[in-house]
Amino acid sequence: MQSKMNALVKHKAGPGAAIVSMDIPKLGPHDVLVKVISTAICGTDLHIYSWNKWAVSRMKSPVVMGHEMSGIIVKTGSAVRNWYEGDYVTMECHITCGQCYQCRTGQGHICRDYSILGVDFDGCFAEYVRVPETNLWAIDQQIPPEVACLQDPVGNAVLATASSDIGGKTVMVTGCGSIGLFAVGVARVLGAAKIYAVDVIDYRLNIAEQMGSTRAINPLRQNPVEEVLLDTEGDGVDVAVEMSGSEQCLHYGLQTVKNGGRLALLGLPEENVSLDLTNEVIFKGITLAGITGREIFATWYKTSALLKSILDVRQVITHKMKLEEYEDAFRIVQSGQCGKVILYP
Amino acid sequence: MQSKMNALVKHKAGPGAAIVSMDIPKLGPHDVLVKVISTAICGTDLHIYSWNKWAVSRMKSPVVMGHEMSGIIVKTGSAVRNWYEGDYVTMECHITCGQCYQCRTGQGHICRDYSILGVDFDGCFAEYVRVPETNLWAIDQQIPPEVACLQDPVGNAVLATASSDIGGKTVMVTGCGSIGLFAVGVARVLGAAKIYAVDVIDYRLNIAEQMGSTRAINPLRQNPVEEVLLDTEGDGVDVAVEMSGSEQCLHYGLQTVKNGGRLALLGLPEENVSLDLTNEVIFKGITLAGITGREIFATWYKTSALLKSILDVRQVITHKMKLEEYEDAFRIVQSGQCGKVILYP
Amino acid sequence: MQSKMNALVKHKAGPGAAIVSMDIPKLGPHDVLVKVISTAICGTDLHIYSWNKWAVSRMKSPVVMGHEMSGIIVKTGSAVRNWYEGDYVTMECHITCGQCYQCRTGQGHICRDYSILGVDFDGCFAEYVRVPETNLWAIDQQIPPEVACLQDPVGNAVLATASSDIGGKTVMVTGCGSIGLFAVGVARVLGAAKIYAVDVIDYRLNIAEQMGSTRAINPLRQNPVEEVLLDTEGDGVDVAVEMSGSEQCLHYGLQTVKNGGRLALLGLPEENVSLDLTNEVIFKGITLAGITGREIFATWYKTSALLKSILDVRQVITHKMKLEEYEDAFRIVQSGQCGKVILYP
Amino acid sequence: MQSKMNALVKHKAGPGAAIVSMDIPKLGPHDVLVKVISTAICGTDLHIYSWNKWAVSRMKSPVVMGHEMSGIIVKTGSAVRNWYEGDYVTMECHITCGQCYQCRTGQGHICRDYSILGVDFDGCFAEYVRVPETNLWAIDQQIPPEVACLQDPVGNAVLATASSDIGGKTVMVTGCGSIGLFAVGVARVLGAAKIYAVDVIDYRLNIAEQMGSTRAINPLRQNPVEEVLLDTEGDGVDVAVEMSGSEQCLHYGLQTVKNGGRLALLGLPEENVSLDLTNEVIFKGITLAGITGREIFATWYKTSALLKSILDVRQVITHKMKLEEYEDAFRIVQSGQCGKVILYP
Repeated sequence: MQSKMNALVKHKAGPGAAIVSMDIPKLGPHDVLVKVISTAICGTDLHIYSWNKWAVSRMKSPVVMGHEMSGIIVKTGSAVRNWYEGDYVTMECHITCGQCYQCRTGQGHICRDYSILGVDFDGCFAEYVRVPETNLWAIDQQIPPEVACLQDPVGNAVLATASSDIGGKTVMVTGCGSIGLFAVGVARVLGAAKIYAVDVIDYRLNIAEQMGSTRAINPLRQNPVEEVLLDTEGDGVDVAVEMSGSEQCLHYGLQTVKNGGRLALLGLPEENVSLDLTNEVIFKGITLAGITGREIFATWYKTSALLKSILDVRQVITHKMKLEEYEDAFRIVQSGQCGKVILYP
Repeated sequence: MQSKMNALVKHKAGPGAAIVSMDIPKLGPHDVLVKVISTAICGTDLHIYSWNKWAVSRMKSPVVMGHEMSGIIVKTGSAVRNWYEGDYVTMECHITCGQCYQCRTGQGHICRDYSILGVDFDGCFAEYVRVPETNLWAIDQQIPPEVACLQDPVGNAVLATASSDIGGKTVMVTGCGSIGLFAVGVARVLGAAKIYAVDVIDYRLNIAEQMGSTRAINPLRQNPVEEVLLDTEGDGVDVAVEMSGSEQCLHYGLQTVKNGGRLALLGLPEENVSLDLTNEVIFKGITLAGITGREIFATWYKTSALLKSILDVRQVITHKMKLEEYEDAFRIVQSGQCGKVILYP
Repeated sequence: MQSKMNALVKHKAGPGAAIVSMDIPKLGPHDVLVKVISTAICGTDLHIYSWNKWAVSRMKSPVVMGHEMSGIIVKTGSAVRNWYEGDYVTMECHITCGQCYQCRTGQGHICRDYSILGVDFDGCFAEYVRVPETNLWAIDQQIPPEVACLQDPVGNAVLATASSDIGGKTVMVTGCGSIGLFAVGVARVLGAAKIYAVDVIDYRLNIAEQMGSTRAINPLRQNPVEEVLLDTEGDGVDVAVEMSGSEQCLHYGLQTVKNGGRLALLGLPEENVSLDLTNEVIFKGITLAGITGREIFATWYKTSALLKSILDVRQVITHKMKLEEYEDAFRIVQSGQCGKVILYP
Repeated sequence: MQSKMNALVKHKAGPGAAIVSMDIPKLGPHDVLVKVISTAICGTDLHIYSWNKWAVSRMKSPVVMGHEMSGIIVKTGSAVRNWYEGDYVTMECHITCGQCYQCRTGQGHICRDYSILGVDFDGCFAEYVRVPETNLWAIDQQIPPEVACLQDPVGNAVLATASSDIGGKTVMVTGCGSIGLFAVGVARVLGAAKIYAVDVIDYRLNIAEQMGSTRAINPLRQNPVEEVLLDTEGDGVDVAVEMSGSEQCLHYGLQTVKNGGRLALLGLPEENVSLDLTNEVIFKGITLAGITGREIFATWYKTSALLKSILDVRQVITHKMKLEEYEDAFRIVQSGQCGKVILYP
């Protein structure tokens, strides 16, 4: 086997990244080495690439970027017992501490002290990636690599959308980036009676309709609150899923959810938001649920089962590029005129 | 308006029933009179018709049979405020006491002291039926009368099937009478990854496949437990829905549900059943949920929304007959070579 | 029976109220007349009395104030069947519409269109009050009138505190007005392992300790976030119950609740609040639940059962006065140097 | 350190056991060695000792008996990072596979393929016991060893009793062996309004009353169903906890639980039971939950917190004996005239 590989590395404090030739990772006893077939760009990668406030406070360079991938195990550490060369896998990118209250009660996805592959450790925008065996997830052969590498963000959408009962219910998804688009698809296959998709970019709304939204609303042209209340005879929606991080969308959700309904929050506002807690939350008796990551591995089981049976997310994949084309790729992600962008190393 | 109507009446203790000409019902202040368009035969009606043990212990004749119907309001009682002549409606057939713990805590469907239209009071196998206003449910014009009259039994299936999360999960339905067939359809539209339908009658299994089962198993030819365990790599199913009342099917469910899974029980065994509680239930950590009726009106909202959007139950309707053909109709129901039998008065 | 009665009436737009002699209420067919024994002052009454922004926007005078009471039925309307003269009762003060989605699905406490006794209709700061029969709640003879009239606000505390599992968990209550004090007591009898009570008024913290808080923290002297994190080895609390309406307390709760924990919101902020949703809610995976009113009647059953068995709220009652002393009474409530103030008409 | 230790060994197929001098266990890299301070006899130990049907089918001798213990770590394996000599600990006795669906979704207590210390591997009725590090649980110094060794069975009671909301509810516990007695105590501190304890042995009922039952019923003298229905005005109990394994008690529970209530099943019937599923379960809309083991480690956190704060189980400890007195100890356990029997090695 070769000893060097190419990788997309956040090489310095500041915007940008660079393709670097580096040693293939060494394995600890509980690690495996995965030959990467397909990767995908996440919003987090864009934050790191463009060097936003969060990245400045969190990242130490150099680090290989990327945390969404599919590939084949080519080597296993000395103590690995349940994984083998040739296994087709993807990975959970959160490395949990295993010792905190959350980890010891089945809530590792909200571990008090976790690290992230591609942020705190070298990630998968590379020919090879080292993965701790506890983070591996086996993929069924029928799932193509471009879909397999999306189980992490589809899992975000599954956790946000499916954590309340939505069969026969009305759902609003605000923010139709790729996770929002997955959320529309999840709501569709889990039996939502009506799905309102909200975004300011028509390109994304078109994909939302392909994913199964019953109505796509662009706030630049229509008021989502008025439209949805009209369409639901004043009842509002049972569940709102906030995927944009926009304060405006948060208010759309709060003002549209019916009394007793539920608002799942996954989109990350960059600034504080201002809420009329009394009228938007308390008198309505609604519930706001902060959602981060994916349950390890309850969400993975559910996501895998959906992808193998009834959930088709291929419409969300709008661009497939080579890893070397990363500058174009990040430009496209930045523009918002895309769904999911796949990178092949 | 005419003063007499025809009705199918359980006229005496013993098997059978008779078409009788009788007065159109008088209304109390909180009643409405509905002109019946479509009705359907329920298993309960067969019990009454064939005069089984339960019927002997419960029924006092004469009573107009039938409790599944759709129709149009033609008259409203003096105190009725929210319903009008011309409204297209169906009904909840349980008349609840309103005073017990269950009724006062939103669990009227398991009221301690309820009566049933078509059992304790005159029902809807007739040209007209009197319905208390609190039992009415408005139907959307787009739902045809043959489907509208099925909201009661579809609601049974919704309550049994949707009371646990089944998105991306595996489900087994034992007993493919009409409620079992509805359950298959509900599991399908709520995103079950795999649905095993089990029945000894191939006619029904064929309909189950049309409703969305991923596999139909006839225990006369294959052992459901072995087949399902093989197909799920030993995991078993997340949810079993028992719709047959057969002790054998109960064991299929218990032995097929995975540790921590759930078994919904709606089918009514006529005799005591014998369980290995230690190994079939306790060591597996599973939950058994007795299901009866439909939540009033949470299940109705969900059922209505599903029927208006993504749940198509028309394949289950196998026979449409005139009320006068009731003898043939009950013979067909008795044979099991049918789905749902519609009767038009 | 006399034909006139004294009542404390919000008689004009503006601060204050007046004792007025007026006709004893006439009954509709579904009403009863209750001779009031004991009433209590709620925060809402203070808003009306002091004529705050909410009161200005909501109230139409004149109206008899008050909605917390206990008394004896002295007359029943012509259609009342299940209540009798001499019954010892209290009341749910929300008159629900009965027609909306919430009302028809067992969530009447968040009815889309409810009215309130003592706000929209004449209330109970009077010798007699008219109550719709559906709002009555029977009281056990062993409960004294001063406690019986508190079932409404104790119910608020029960709904807020007991809507998540708190047995063996850690709980923080911010805001020790009377509902906060009840919440401390509820957490105590439901088995919370640790209860932190937070308020700026030491008078109230002293009562909190009598009600069972394991630690009382005055933010004027100590930082609640630091103290609680220290005391829980960095874990934080499982449940925070916000009863103050103060934005500062909201942040105490958000920053103290452990990842995956729950924050119940009942205190009503008068202005918008500013939240760091990303770090205070989403990355922590916590849930915020808006709480208003009491489940009708699930919360009433639970509250009654607790008051009859293990929950003693008498320490919260700090003042007992005659209705005519209302000016002193409201002055005391305004000062915050009190628990619950009882008024006898 | 000495190289030999005494242990109580199931030394052959057949009734009885023997004190044997044997080597102190060797450690694997992820094991620790615990010097045992206190142990307790479980029903399972009695089954093994008396060699019942289950033991015949499951046990391979020789094996050191016992799985409830408290002690001090005296040695740690080479790879152990988070435990130290001198740590005061108890243990979860189920060694889970870590690979099955249940283990990977936070349900290790119902692992498809677990082993048990004291059954499948050498246990703790000995001077020393080897424990895998993942099974250790740290104990607070304030908890005495006799209580600390009970966290496993108290955890059974916590999982069975606290898995539904019991604050302000009525609870019936059938079977007042030690786990039943713990269940009474748990129901007491979690705020049950009424607790009915049922057993045929008065000795145990007396302890139940000390643990907080509001009423103790001996079926040899009174019919529990009649008594409880009378006492609850016909409503029945919200929750029944079946701890006896007796079919008769199962029927007491089913016939006493109110419509919509819940029956937790932990007692293990030795033979099949016969149920009237239609009337005892389905028409009542009740839920039966099979309970086994304890959630790892959610139940441990809750149990520890309760034991440190408000749950006192010392009344259940009726006998403290030396390990060598095991013959007397098992005779006492067999008689039922005891609560928990402690053995000191």
